[in-house]
Amino acid sequence: MSIQVKAVSQAFHHQTILDNVSLTIEPEKIYGLLGRNGAGKSTLLNIISNRIFADHGTVTLDEQSMRDNDQTLGRIYLMSEVNLYPDRTKLNKLLDTTTQLYGDFDRPYAERLAKEFGLDLNARFGKLSTGYRTIFKLIVAFCVPADYIFLDEPVLGLDANHRELFYNELIETYSEKPRTFVISTHLIEEIANLIEHVFVLDHHQITVNGSVPDILERAYTISGSDHDVTTYTQGLNVIGADHLGGITAHYVYGPLQDDRPIPDTVKIEHLDLQKLFINLTNTKEEAHVN
Amino acid sequence: MSIQVKAVSQAFHHQTILDNVSLTIEPEKIYGLLGRNGAGKSTLLNIISNRIFADHGTVTLDEQSMRDNDQTLGRIYLMSEVNLYPDRTKLNKLLDTTTQLYGDFDRPYAERLAKEFGLDLNARFGKLSTGYRTIFKLIVAFCVPADYIFLDEPVLGLDANHRELFYNELIETYSEKPRTFVISTHLIEEIANLIEHVFVLDHHQITVNGSVPDILERAYTISGSDHDVTTYTQGLNVIGADHLGGITAHYVYGPLQDDRPIPDTVKIEHLDLQKLFINLTNTKEEAHVN
Repeated sequence: MSIQVKAVSQAFHHQTILDNVSLTIEPEKIYGLLGRNGAGKSTLLNIISNRIFADHGTVTLDEQSMRDNDQTLGRIYLMSEVNLYPDRTKLNKLLDTTTQLYGDFDRPYAERLAKEFGLDLNARFGKLSTGYRTIFKLIVAFCVPADYIFLDEPVLGLDANHRELFYNELIETYSEKPRTFVISTHLIEEIANLIEHVFVLDHHQITVNGSVPDILERAYTISGSDHDVTTYTQGLNVIGADHLGGITAHYVYGPLQDDRPIPDTVKIEHLDLQKLFINLTNTKEEAHVN
Repeated sequence: MSIQVKAVSQAFHHQTILDNVSLTIEPEKIYGLLGRNGAGKSTLLNIISNRIFADHGTVTLDEQSMRDNDQTLGRIYLMSEVNLYPDRTKLNKLLDTTTQLYGDFDRPYAERLAKEFGLDLNARFGKLSTGYRTIFKLIVAFCVPADYIFLDEPVLGLDANHRELFYNELIETYSEKPRTFVISTHLIEEIANLIEHVFVLDHHQITVNGSVPDILERAYTISGSDHDVTTYTQGLNVIGADHLGGITAHYVYGPLQDDRPIPDTVKIEHLDLQKLFINLTNTKEEAHVN
């Protein structure tokens, strides 16, 4: 029981978007899919949910191909950044259509969520602000009877209050009816406590794939005087550094060497997920234009 | 020496946007302007920078009216969410025009920033992603010779790495050449350590106006068993509550009563700025449509 992505590669106009990506998505887990702008996250989500076909590689759900397979497709839902709804249609009407498409669409829950978020279901989609478009799409994603739900940029345009409401609703709906959520977002620290497992997509490849506690366990900030820090971190996997006043901080991902004495002036702490991500994916900037 | 906003009110289509807003913006300080979606932040920034005229009230800079006053206007710069640049024009050309408008535009700094953010100045504005449009507008805002710089949604579309780069650059340019920045953003926790002073705009009025340390000093989480917490917070200014399992948390804004005994089971901690903001502005949701 799982989604298996095997050796998926994709290019557009001779530019690599995904390069030999493999991963497994298990049932009833909450995942984070992290990557910089342009890393290929949306393309990967579109391939998994069969909206585009990969040049190479396969995606299966419970060992069945997803390609043109209505049975498997109905079990997957992608909430994407793209607005797929007609501007002039009222939200209530859009919910009617969704209910017809998905027999088990949870309409009462959708109406309750709309009330909580202050969304007027008599409004037309095109009249909504960016934040409320996101909210409407989130409501649909929470109410479809899918086993695997992919949320691409689920907090786009949301203020802090609505983001908190979304995180709380996610925990609640997940505990009432466990299913898989894969969340792709730039607000990493805000989801760090929600996700169990993280994928990092960097330079078109999966570079980190593991449970959040395991990953954070191996991530350190070593700070102190420049000389002592540099001496202590020699031979360790230093992924970044900061200097402020007389203090140096080295960010390390991987095991420390326990037999090495720690100088009194050196402080060792754990990194948070966002800071770890930034340092893992901070390479020399390339010009980037859409 | 300051910007004085006095009794500013504004309505659109008989709907109140700002209701009797007064505040002072001093030189060489970093401010946060916080408010929920639709609270009127952008309207206030547009009025201060003379892009729209208030129905009522005045805005002065060093006691001079800003209205149609070229001398004062050149000292203020607003980076707004709206894209004011023509799509087909190359960024280099846009910098040329800006340099002509502002004699002291810091072109070498603009070029250095473009390099750091990985922005190709030969690209056309219309070809940029949302994130890179924001980055270009930020670069212009950092390089104009204004004394008061207003940044409306400065991290829109930026990934975590670019947000960190922006925060670091802001600290650096501010310490090299102190001037005033007013930042309006929904990512409150990320700017909490950058800003000295905060304005909260809620229901069209300024409801919080003070230094960040002073405000956080008065903000508490009181947690423990439901009975003990409720007893302890009676008569205090409780602005919100959470319940998880058997634990209750009350959020308090204002003085505690020091003579009251604290039960052993009750824990008192300080709130962070984002959580404080959420609780101060969380009212019953109203339907909200653009």
